[in-house]
Amino acid sequence: MIDNLLIEKLLNKERRAIARSISIVELNNSTSVELLEKIHPNVGRAYRIGVTGPPGAGKSSITNQLTKYYLKQNKTIGIIAVDPSSPFTGGALLGDRIRMTEIGQNPNVFIRSMASRGSLGGLSKKAIDAADVIDAAGYDYIIFETVGVGQSELDIANAADTTIVVLVPESGDYVQAMKAGLMEIADFFVLNKSDRPGAQQATTALTTILMLKDHDEYSWIPNIIQTIATENKGIDEIANEINRHHIYLKNSNNFIKNRELNIKRRIKDIVEENIQNLLWNNFSENLLNSTLEKVVAGDLSPYQLAEKIIYNFRNHL
Amino acid sequence: MIDNLLIEKLLNKERRAIARSISIVELNNSTSVELLEKIHPNVGRAYRIGVTGPPGAGKSSITNQLTKYYLKQNKTIGIIAVDPSSPFTGGALLGDRIRMTEIGQNPNVFIRSMASRGSLGGLSKKAIDAADVIDAAGYDYIIFETVGVGQSELDIANAADTTIVVLVPESGDYVQAMKAGLMEIADFFVLNKSDRPGAQQATTALTTILMLKDHDEYSWIPNIIQTIATENKGIDEIANEINRHHIYLKNSNNFIKNRELNIKRRIKDIVEENIQNLLWNNFSENLLNSTLEKVVAGDLSPYQLAEKIIYNFRNHL
Repeated sequence: MIDNLLIEKLLNKERRAIARSISIVELNNSTSVELLEKIHPNVGRAYRIGVTGPPGAGKSSITNQLTKYYLKQNKTIGIIAVDPSSPFTGGALLGDRIRMTEIGQNPNVFIRSMASRGSLGGLSKKAIDAADVIDAAGYDYIIFETVGVGQSELDIANAADTTIVVLVPESGDYVQAMKAGLMEIADFFVLNKSDRPGAQQATTALTTILMLKDHDEYSWIPNIIQTIATENKGIDEIANEINRHHIYLKNSNNFIKNRELNIKRRIKDIVEENIQNLLWNNFSENLLNSTLEKVVAGDLSPYQLAEKIIYNFRNHL
Repeated sequence: MIDNLLIEKLLNKERRAIARSISIVELNNSTSVELLEKIHPNVGRAYRIGVTGPPGAGKSSITNQLTKYYLKQNKTIGIIAVDPSSPFTGGALLGDRIRMTEIGQNPNVFIRSMASRGSLGGLSKKAIDAADVIDAAGYDYIIFETVGVGQSELDIANAADTTIVVLVPESGDYVQAMKAGLMEIADFFVLNKSDRPGAQQATTALTTILMLKDHDEYSWIPNIIQTIATENKGIDEIANEINRHHIYLKNSNNFIKNRELNIKRRIKDIVEENIQNLLWNNFSENLLNSTLEKVVAGDLSPYQLAEKIIYNFRNHL
């Protein structure tokens, strides 16, 4: 049971209530559902920005500088830093530490870090649920900071209104990057550390690739913004480009369409999770366990046993 | 329809038939199922080795050297190189090129590279299906080479009999690595590039962490093998450790238990995929699409619409 006082405090932007509510949605149980139901009418006002790219490209610096930019405009910012691959990217922790001293103490900033810690499943769902909590609390911007291009990151990018892909001149094979789905998720690119050798060639290569994409005069064509985040160079340009993309989304009616798609994806996830729980009841677990040895022995194929289980599920639901 | 001649040629270890069969299972459709059904009785003889770790640790070099070691013993080796994060790891491509010239031409080696190319879903399933094809063709060893510790890699590691985690002295935060599930998947660690500074400290740190794990006198305790793969140092030790682990698995009855678990996981995947297809029929898609705007407007919560769809599914299955 969710205490109504908690919801009240959350909607009142009390930091401890926000933190507590995120911890509740992270549990991903019936209490989480109750909380998400209660805040649902208050969700949807924050503008959501995704910042992704390879380790070491400077995503944390970009996020921090952008946050400082918005703070100067008297905006409130929630940051959700997701690092499913944290075991090998010591940088994330360092970035977190710098962040905490620079902006973490500001009352207009709320930061939550999420790492996989052994289980990756549901990480993107938890990040998006956490965004809803911060959104309901009335923050103006929510920035998702994610590493890499795994499925979790793609899911989170899909949940953002504007997604920024941060690269550096030495990021390497841009053609590969494009093939791996970055073309689809990037609303614009940031070429960080653009004072390094190869920046111009990288920009040219990216531009060429982007022009290959089908587009007409109404299409949004991703720009490439050169930055040096550590020197605060190019941050205004990032904020302007986010704004320009926001206006494009609204004018093209894509803003609401994207949000509908997100809600749709989410409802599907909820349905599928529930169906899975219905599916793996004692009966089908027993059927699977008791017939497994026949499959191991080669007398039955995995597909034949699967068929039996499905048949049973359909007849006993 | 699968041509029986293809199966015959595959079981006869003809390279073109193996390649063609893998392409068929990658389609993940009814033809794939038919092929996997037909080869099922011939699957299960190959010993499966997983090689994982962060980019740049030298997984390709380890895999190549280990392959050469087995070749000298007149063994046949299948390699499945999976790189879901390929956009930013140019190294994988380079590794592939070196590999092709060194061992790729050897008739006793079969190599298949798999990258995500825009869609990550099902990558681990495809890799495991591909392993079954190579297994059915009669190869002695199958090496899965994967980057990082995403869900795909964990799934693939689970499908291996022995999983090796390759690290380098500078891999960084070992405690984090352990938390992220590497402790659970590593049957032993390889500390590659062990001539670099920090190798001894890294070994000490890893050993300390490994000793923290609960174990009794019958437990398998992961060892740490120091190597310099590019100089072929420590490869014999890796092969010996794989062998020692294989013997442990057999004696402790875990070999068959692990394989049962893999088949079980796989059957569950097949069942769930089929149920999803049943679930998202026209009726529930329509229900979702036609009621979505109420959710967007805040009149209905995502959970309430999900409940409607589940109710309908249960009553119309």
